[in-house]
Amino acid sequence: MEYRKLKDQEDEEEAAVGGNAIESLRGKAHSLSNVAALGGGTAIERSKWKRKSIVTFALTVLTSSQAILIVWSKRAGKYEYSVTTANFMVETLKCALSVAALSGIWRNEGVTEDNRLSTTLNEVIVYPIPAALYLVKNLLQYYIFAYVDAPGYQILKNLNIISTGVLYRIILKKKLSEIQWAAFILLCAGCTTAQLNSNSDRVLQTPFQGWMMAIVMALLSGFAGVYTEAIIKKRPSRNINVQNFWLYVFGMIFNAIAILVQDFDAVMNKGFFHGYTIITVLMILNHALSGIAVSMVMKYADNIVKVYSTSVAMLLTAVVSVFLFGFNLSLAFFLGSTVVSVAVYLHSAGKLR
Amino acid sequence: MEYRKLKDQEDEEEAAVGGNAIESLRGKAHSLSNVAALGGGTAIERSKWKRKSIVTFALTVLTSSQAILIVWSKRAGKYEYSVTTANFMVETLKCALSVAALSGIWRNEGVTEDNRLSTTLNEVIVYPIPAALYLVKNLLQYYIFAYVDAPGYQILKNLNIISTGVLYRIILKKKLSEIQWAAFILLCAGCTTAQLNSNSDRVLQTPFQGWMMAIVMALLSGFAGVYTEAIIKKRPSRNINVQNFWLYVFGMIFNAIAILVQDFDAVMNKGFFHGYTIITVLMILNHALSGIAVSMVMKYADNIVKVYSTSVAMLLTAVVSVFLFGFNLSLAFFLGSTVVSVAVYLHSAGKLR
Repeated sequence: MEYRKLKDQEDEEEAAVGGNAIESLRGKAHSLSNVAALGGGTAIERSKWKRKSIVTFALTVLTSSQAILIVWSKRAGKYEYSVTTANFMVETLKCALSVAALSGIWRNEGVTEDNRLSTTLNEVIVYPIPAALYLVKNLLQYYIFAYVDAPGYQILKNLNIISTGVLYRIILKKKLSEIQWAAFILLCAGCTTAQLNSNSDRVLQTPFQGWMMAIVMALLSGFAGVYTEAIIKKRPSRNINVQNFWLYVFGMIFNAIAILVQDFDAVMNKGFFHGYTIITVLMILNHALSGIAVSMVMKYADNIVKVYSTSVAMLLTAVVSVFLFGFNLSLAFFLGSTVVSVAVYLHSAGKLR
Repeated sequence: MEYRKLKDQEDEEEAAVGGNAIESLRGKAHSLSNVAALGGGTAIERSKWKRKSIVTFALTVLTSSQAILIVWSKRAGKYEYSVTTANFMVETLKCALSVAALSGIWRNEGVTEDNRLSTTLNEVIVYPIPAALYLVKNLLQYYIFAYVDAPGYQILKNLNIISTGVLYRIILKKKLSEIQWAAFILLCAGCTTAQLNSNSDRVLQTPFQGWMMAIVMALLSGFAGVYTEAIIKKRPSRNINVQNFWLYVFGMIFNAIAILVQDFDAVMNKGFFHGYTIITVLMILNHALSGIAVSMVMKYADNIVKVYSTSVAMLLTAVVSVFLFGFNLSLAFFLGSTVVSVAVYLHSAGKLR
């Protein structure tokens, strides 16, 4: 399932369109909260639930269309562009979209303590951490292929689900019920089952060092996600576009370093935008929007919802691929999808009262 | 997983040894209930739970060792004996063991209304039904192979899990909680996942008639199991050995018919016990004991427990086979076992209060 390959590169992240839509919803929630303060607070709960549903739905659709774009671009031929420049463009676009959303808000509401772009060292000092963690993880990615092949790595990446759950519990100190833990184990087993193919058993021959690296990478990726949620949730009243702006600025910086290290010669000789096609541009746009959707899910929901959302997106992609590319669905895919569906049900049925 | 092949032939059923052990436990429960009537009834609950655990454990161990005996006998060479005569011997042995257990009870407690062997037409009229259903199902088994191959049939047989759950709900009118239903779906998906191999996808090409026959067979098998439980539970005070005796008498009759229809010539020419080896005798003994364990589970637990027990036995068999026969466990097996384990947990965690 190659379409998961780019998934990790956009795990911190707002768009002019999406952002404004969400902000107007927030405005609605605020005016509703004034009404609800008298009426018992159910309207604000409903509004929060609605916002959470919209961002989760957006993330699911964007993630699955992302994967489809990747399959499409692969069918069209090899990647001719530098992946590092594309990643840099994704960060830059997200940054630009955050500023565009903010300028709309400033025009309507004026500049306030919560939506001003200027910040303190105390606020901004933690923002580079997620980007740095992803950099380390992406570097490790080159070494793990000494121990596992690419399909095996796709299987091992499902360890991210477990590491996110464990770190979410430890770092954010939020509790999951026993049923929800059971659902999380099922989510991991179901996603892996859905990806099984005739060569998957080779992953069991992974040497000890390979397992260790896969676990470290899962922990790095899980920690980056949970830490981003911690940063965003630490200041609940702070405008998400400002928080995103700072996250993405550091994303730009770290990706610029990656260009220098990995693709300096190619960029110098062939140009920054060499090999870009319409599909490349669509992919960058999609990655930027889904990155912003991830941030929104972190702000208005949590990492657990994000993991469920991207897992369901993986299944959706496979189903859509049947129609678009004539893929065949395996029995393992049906079984894995059943297990993932039951996991989604159990996660909501098992809510702590 | 050929060891499941004989599993359906012993779904109604008691042993001298096992029977007496259980009966002495029942005696203990009775004397305990007199004490508990004063003390709040927790001791009797504990005793019931203990009895339920013992029969379930016995069924799990017997079922998994059964499967191992089948693998062993296959390794030793082809079946040289007539399967129908072996099935008849299983029923005869169960019948003999029930009578032996009863004679012990008569000696200790005397003949009572509950343990006398004589019966009324009203009581006994339903006893041939399960045996007849199994006969129809076994006949259909010959025709389904026109549509699916043997490994595909093993996969489709997991539909029994779902049909047992649905018929248990409809016929015995016992409720499962939503979490327990989710667990049941997981049990089915997990068992199927554990059995996946590189050819399993062929089952998706099963034609419509094949699916229909598989569903009908699952319903027949589920109905026979649930109906046996209904018969046994209808008269809770009736001694289980008497109930088993009558079930097994009809089992003997139906299996005698099967010998006449299928293996009359072979028996006439080569003799009833032709091809029997020490492994055949061990298999007959094991089938008889596990058949009795199934009856015990029906009496003291239910069909749901039986399904979980035999599913866990399937996983145990595979693990034991690694050590005994050098089998390799696949990634699909680990994933399926994880899902089955979570299902077992959810079944107990999801109990209706």
